[in-house]
Amino acid sequence: MRKVAAILGGGVIGGGWAARFLLNGWDVRVFDPDPQAERKIGEVLANARRALPGLGNVALPPEGKMTLHPTVAEAVSGVEWVQESVPERLDIKHKVFRQIEAAGYTGTVGSSTSGFKPSELNKGAAKPGQFTVCHPFNPVYLLPVVEVVAVPEGAANVERAKEVLSGLGMYPLHLKKEIDAHVADRLLEAVWREALWLVKDGIASTEEIDNAMRYGFGLRWAQMGLFETYRIAGGEAGMKHFMAQFGPCLTWPWTKLMDVPEFTDELVDLIAGQSDAQSGHLSIRELERIRDGNLVGFIRLLAQNQWGAGALQNEHDVLREADMGLVRSVSELGEISSPVLTVKRVVPLDWLDYNGHMTEARYLDAFTAAADRLMLIVGCTPEYIANGGSFFTAETHIRHLDEAKAGDPIEVHTRVLSAEGKKMHIWHELRRGDTLLATAEQMLIHVSLKTRAASVPAAHIAENLGRLAAAHAALPAPEGKGRSVGAPR
Amino acid sequence: MRKVAAILGGGVIGGGWAARFLLNGWDVRVFDPDPQAERKIGEVLANARRALPGLGNVALPPEGKMTLHPTVAEAVSGVEWVQESVPERLDIKHKVFRQIEAAGYTGTVGSSTSGFKPSELNKGAAKPGQFTVCHPFNPVYLLPVVEVVAVPEGAANVERAKEVLSGLGMYPLHLKKEIDAHVADRLLEAVWREALWLVKDGIASTEEIDNAMRYGFGLRWAQMGLFETYRIAGGEAGMKHFMAQFGPCLTWPWTKLMDVPEFTDELVDLIAGQSDAQSGHLSIRELERIRDGNLVGFIRLLAQNQWGAGALQNEHDVLREADMGLVRSVSELGEISSPVLTVKRVVPLDWLDYNGHMTEARYLDAFTAAADRLMLIVGCTPEYIANGGSFFTAETHIRHLDEAKAGDPIEVHTRVLSAEGKKMHIWHELRRGDTLLATAEQMLIHVSLKTRAASVPAAHIAENLGRLAAAHAALPAPEGKGRSVGAPR
Repeated sequence: MRKVAAILGGGVIGGGWAARFLLNGWDVRVFDPDPQAERKIGEVLANARRALPGLGNVALPPEGKMTLHPTVAEAVSGVEWVQESVPERLDIKHKVFRQIEAAGYTGTVGSSTSGFKPSELNKGAAKPGQFTVCHPFNPVYLLPVVEVVAVPEGAANVERAKEVLSGLGMYPLHLKKEIDAHVADRLLEAVWREALWLVKDGIASTEEIDNAMRYGFGLRWAQMGLFETYRIAGGEAGMKHFMAQFGPCLTWPWTKLMDVPEFTDELVDLIAGQSDAQSGHLSIRELERIRDGNLVGFIRLLAQNQWGAGALQNEHDVLREADMGLVRSVSELGEISSPVLTVKRVVPLDWLDYNGHMTEARYLDAFTAAADRLMLIVGCTPEYIANGGSFFTAETHIRHLDEAKAGDPIEVHTRVLSAEGKKMHIWHELRRGDTLLATAEQMLIHVSLKTRAASVPAAHIAENLGRLAAAHAALPAPEGKGRSVGAPR
Repeated sequence: MRKVAAILGGGVIGGGWAARFLLNGWDVRVFDPDPQAERKIGEVLANARRALPGLGNVALPPEGKMTLHPTVAEAVSGVEWVQESVPERLDIKHKVFRQIEAAGYTGTVGSSTSGFKPSELNKGAAKPGQFTVCHPFNPVYLLPVVEVVAVPEGAANVERAKEVLSGLGMYPLHLKKEIDAHVADRLLEAVWREALWLVKDGIASTEEIDNAMRYGFGLRWAQMGLFETYRIAGGEAGMKHFMAQFGPCLTWPWTKLMDVPEFTDELVDLIAGQSDAQSGHLSIRELERIRDGNLVGFIRLLAQNQWGAGALQNEHDVLREADMGLVRSVSELGEISSPVLTVKRVVPLDWLDYNGHMTEARYLDAFTAAADRLMLIVGCTPEYIANGGSFFTAETHIRHLDEAKAGDPIEVHTRVLSAEGKKMHIWHELRRGDTLLATAEQMLIHVSLKTRAASVPAAHIAENLGRLAAAHAALPAPEGKGRSVGAPR
């Protein structure tokens, strides 16, 4: 039975929540009085479908079902989570909360508020603490962080929020004290204020400010944030040295512009005009797609480096792989006579080329992941590799039979053609549904990582490979085996 | 004759400048009275050698030579650029400037100052405007942005700075008005101030603040900065809508904490202690290598997406490819009887796997780049592809003969084995120096991008391919051609 969430408010944030829940297999019940709500959520969902499913290295469960409901009461009926993303006005939020209470829903209500404290949200609550700040960041379907803040009575709701959000591949950042605008928006607000001054005073245009960030410190903050970056800046002497060196700057005249710029029509026009000049040649939808492609690429690069948001994604993948039928040992395989499922994922945005389809080198990425999974299954584990044994690929032959696009669900099945001594001869078939997209034949050699020379694998690996080879020998020989490039079919 | 730069001050920033100049083929003359200077610069240079050469898709020129000099006068003698990175005290900078003047150097002096205005730097200058703010960001060898600010008399120095910095693959951000701390450090200062309050008040730890950034808005700023990100947040209604919605927040109580926290020992200890708990298990050198690996990966991902810092890198690559012997047409090849140089690059950090060497799929990245270069040379240009013709790879056979590591310079030479009708049969050899690391045999098929079916290429492409095939037919057949996986040698 699928889990069900209610999404109250279907703007950019509410739509992002709807997409995140749906693509993680939840059914979603939406309340939003805007007659355009379905179209708007549909647009966010289209973006999310393009970006999120390929983000991790393990496929997501089948997408849930979205329904729209005319009242809060109907939307929250029988759900396991309510996420409120109505406009940022306390009176509106309180009105919706009273409707939730009247409908008899007693579970956690996550509020997407960027500014209100949980004590404000819970004013007048029948069950104090039910309304919990769960503040996400746009695009909600890709960025993992959610600020979670509760009043003391809401401790159980914090635990529930952590459970639900982690299940969506998100990172619940539990703040122990409440404060206006939580943490991230305090920092954003500080930058926004300073940036408005810089534009207003004619020091820099919006584009110059953006370039100062994205060609510079933005690339640092995306991976390490502020303090870890400065820790490095302090050098071997560390954080104390950094603070001794740069702390006093706080009292230099740089800090003089801390009052708030007057928010006049002229300032709005100045900023909006500069922003048009900078990015007006791209529609918001185009900018969103560019942003999402970059975000997917960043997070996937960080996953490769086992760092930051990518390390989070890897943890989430490992938790989910068993659900997708991906195993880690021969004993988990059950029967071993069929080709082994070694990859089950979606083609991610960073796998495309200028022809608009999955680029050829990414097929080899998929086959490499397949060979890695097979190695794991036969006992060539990370520990085994750390102890100095591994397999290197000596030879690969790939046939491209059909195209794949971003978002395509793909699977690789692998069989062992032979395994004798140092050699492992394997065969991969990459499919989208029933369509065979590519095959790869590979010869891998077991090596000692110390000598970099061929060596025999440990006995348990040889035995597992032998069992698979013997079982797979009963299958018909794959079409294309032993083929050379350009040979007649 | 190699260009020569003087680097005055060899700390983290000066060392980063030294590395950036050296790896871009400049000789570097260093002045730094610190007896540890050579060791310190050597450590920065080691990091830079690991990260920068592979960043672009075109190899860098041979590394320049670094010499250390006991006086400013000797260091600046006969150089084409002086970069000052001495401690951030105006009296020290002025003293060094007077020594530069006394030595008779009259060219541009770039100052790495993060805080001083050019009018302050040029106080007492013999040649007003000679001292130009060229403020880089750590690590200088990877981050492209440099804030360039001059007094009105320094206009020619700004032009010179743009020329030199662009030649180093950097992005000179010319600020038209001077201001304390320029632009980027204004923003950094605002965040630093706010973050100190959040830690001091016990709202969040340094790690929680870093996580709020790197799992959230940091990933946005790395690609788009502040204003372009908010432009998207405004949705179809755009920047004005965003400002109408969020501008008023500036006067909310969030802004109350704009005074400066008192910089007590307790605050320093609190922050340093939290930072140790967060990152103390990694040395500064380890953190630097992690940071650099992520930065290289981010910029390369952005290059793939032709966006932000990656788009800058692509421009820089194109400007440099001819110097490296990479051509764009058959006519530029000169004689056509030898295999064509199709890749000349360095193995980048993001091409490694858990075995510590270049991972197998990246060999196919290199061969794909080689085939793309050959396509360009025979006339399958971006315009041709935009008009609906291209080549798809049908089949690839790779032999891995030796390993490659990050930083290895590699070349691919490609020959046309045959080209008849829709088919192009090619052979790549990937070498590090004289060592053959891998070969690839590929069959590509010309397709119509409209029908996705095979089609004959345009006449000019067929003719160019035919000429190359005929010329290459005179070469001995490559060893390994026509091989299938596992065939006896």
